[in-house]
Amino acid sequence: MTPQEIVTRMYEKDAFSQWLGVRILEVDQGHCRLSMRVRPEMCNGFHIGHGGITYALADSTLAFASNSLGQHAVSIETSISHTRIVQPGDLLTATSQLLKDGRNLAIFQITVTNQKEETVALFKGTVLKQKSWDEK
Amino acid sequence: MTPQEIVTRMYEKDAFSQWLGVRILEVDQGHCRLSMRVRPEMCNGFHIGHGGITYALADSTLAFASNSLGQHAVSIETSISHTRIVQPGDLLTATSQLLKDGRNLAIFQITVTNQKEETVALFKGTVLKQKSWDEK
Amino acid sequence: MTPQEIVTRMYEKDAFSQWLGVRILEVDQGHCRLSMRVRPEMCNGFHIGHGGITYALADSTLAFASNSLGQHAVSIETSISHTRIVQPGDLLTATSQLLKDGRNLAIFQITVTNQKEETVALFKGTVLKQKSWDEK
Amino acid sequence: MTPQEIVTRMYEKDAFSQWLGVRILEVDQGHCRLSMRVRPEMCNGFHIGHGGITYALADSTLAFASNSLGQHAVSIETSISHTRIVQPGDLLTATSQLLKDGRNLAIFQITVTNQKEETVALFKGTVLKQKSWDEK
Repeated sequence: MTPQEIVTRMYEKDAFSQWLGVRILEVDQGHCRLSMRVRPEMCNGFHIGHGGITYALADSTLAFASNSLGQHAVSIETSISHTRIVQPGDLLTATSQLLKDGRNLAIFQITVTNQKEETVALFKGTVLKQKSWDEK
Repeated sequence: MTPQEIVTRMYEKDAFSQWLGVRILEVDQGHCRLSMRVRPEMCNGFHIGHGGITYALADSTLAFASNSLGQHAVSIETSISHTRIVQPGDLLTATSQLLKDGRNLAIFQITVTNQKEETVALFKGTVLKQKSWDEK
Repeated sequence: MTPQEIVTRMYEKDAFSQWLGVRILEVDQGHCRLSMRVRPEMCNGFHIGHGGITYALADSTLAFASNSLGQHAVSIETSISHTRIVQPGDLLTATSQLLKDGRNLAIFQITVTNQKEETVALFKGTVLKQKSWDEK
Repeated sequence: MTPQEIVTRMYEKDAFSQWLGVRILEVDQGHCRLSMRVRPEMCNGFHIGHGGITYALADSTLAFASNSLGQHAVSIETSISHTRIVQPGDLLTATSQLLKDGRNLAIFQITVTNQKEETVALFKGTVLKQKSWDEK
């Protein structure tokens, strides 16, 4: 399967990414770029984007980017720093960078920016690689 | 303001925690325990709970527990390990433990379990303390 | 091999743990407790314990505790928060807690305290399990 | 004080960085690049570089880079992934990248490479900024 086929298959059935309104901007082997618009129901008690929304966008980016390497990939450990307030109406874009691609593990940095190209979150994720997407 | 008043004020306006169906089980100074049921629209392409859902529950727990110390608290850095698959229908409970309460910073461990009391995620969060909830 | 045999074999050849003056207080399956005294040459430009010293003690604890489960274990991701200043002369003790023991991965929390039983660092480590210590 | 003056003052008294044999390759405002050679006494029971050595080099880089911004900076949270084995004799170089420079906090990515320019570790550190180096 190609990276695009893998991500399409994952995305089509991904109910939460669809609730988020995630759009796929780019997919390549080991790379993915997603965007979404922050809606009022995604905000917390301070009327700013809930940390779980930004994390979810980055986590979907991690899932798509890591599986696009060709093996099923399971998240082991992720960390996120929320570096700037997210406002309702913001258009967020998450871009992956493959930091390490090993035999068993891959590590990605994912940067989330707003429509002004300001960084709103820095995310790092480590995945464990399992069987190939081509295996039955 | 009491811990309960702070958390009530935060929760009442927290649209995303309400979308998640978060219920507040316990609040005390520097402590919080929340639960929620995983619905189908919270699942990813593998029909299991999206990592963003578990993170969001833990992040709300961090927000409530840290603000209940009496000062406005802003998340600096969080990390999460998803240690067991979350199934649709699972009832998740997130419980905070205050690891460190310093002058400027507080650190919490948050453990998320399912209805069988199996740990599904381990979350650590660091917050920066700001002005008191009693200040105008 | 028993947990004690595994740790003894690792420790005997571990030149840096010996430079640190690490003493093994307890070893059990999936558990380890180490101590060491902070010497002046372990301090930084502020005349306090260098972060690398506390990390190294915790990292040795992780290595011994995780290998004592019976499989070769390789560190994947570690994080540490230095929560209190370490002074020259302090006697540090690192105690492991096994948070998760899976088929491929194990996660440990390691708490480092001083001689007053004050926590000086919180460390979390994830390891990948490989072949058994009994295999040739 | 200039970035160079701050780092010189920190380094001159930093006994552990000197034990490590750290050399300062570059210092600029919010940036630092250090190198060191791995000696046999820095290795663990597998005769490879102890994780604490690589961490210590990255942590010194974080300390110098963050203080060079002009305010005293205290490490809050650090994480490191050891992505490739370090051999005795390796020449390690740690290079900082300033990811976020806020009013209270700064976040750095530090990449450690060997003499073949292979990445051996990825480090992220968050610091809390305190009083200016120019204040008495």
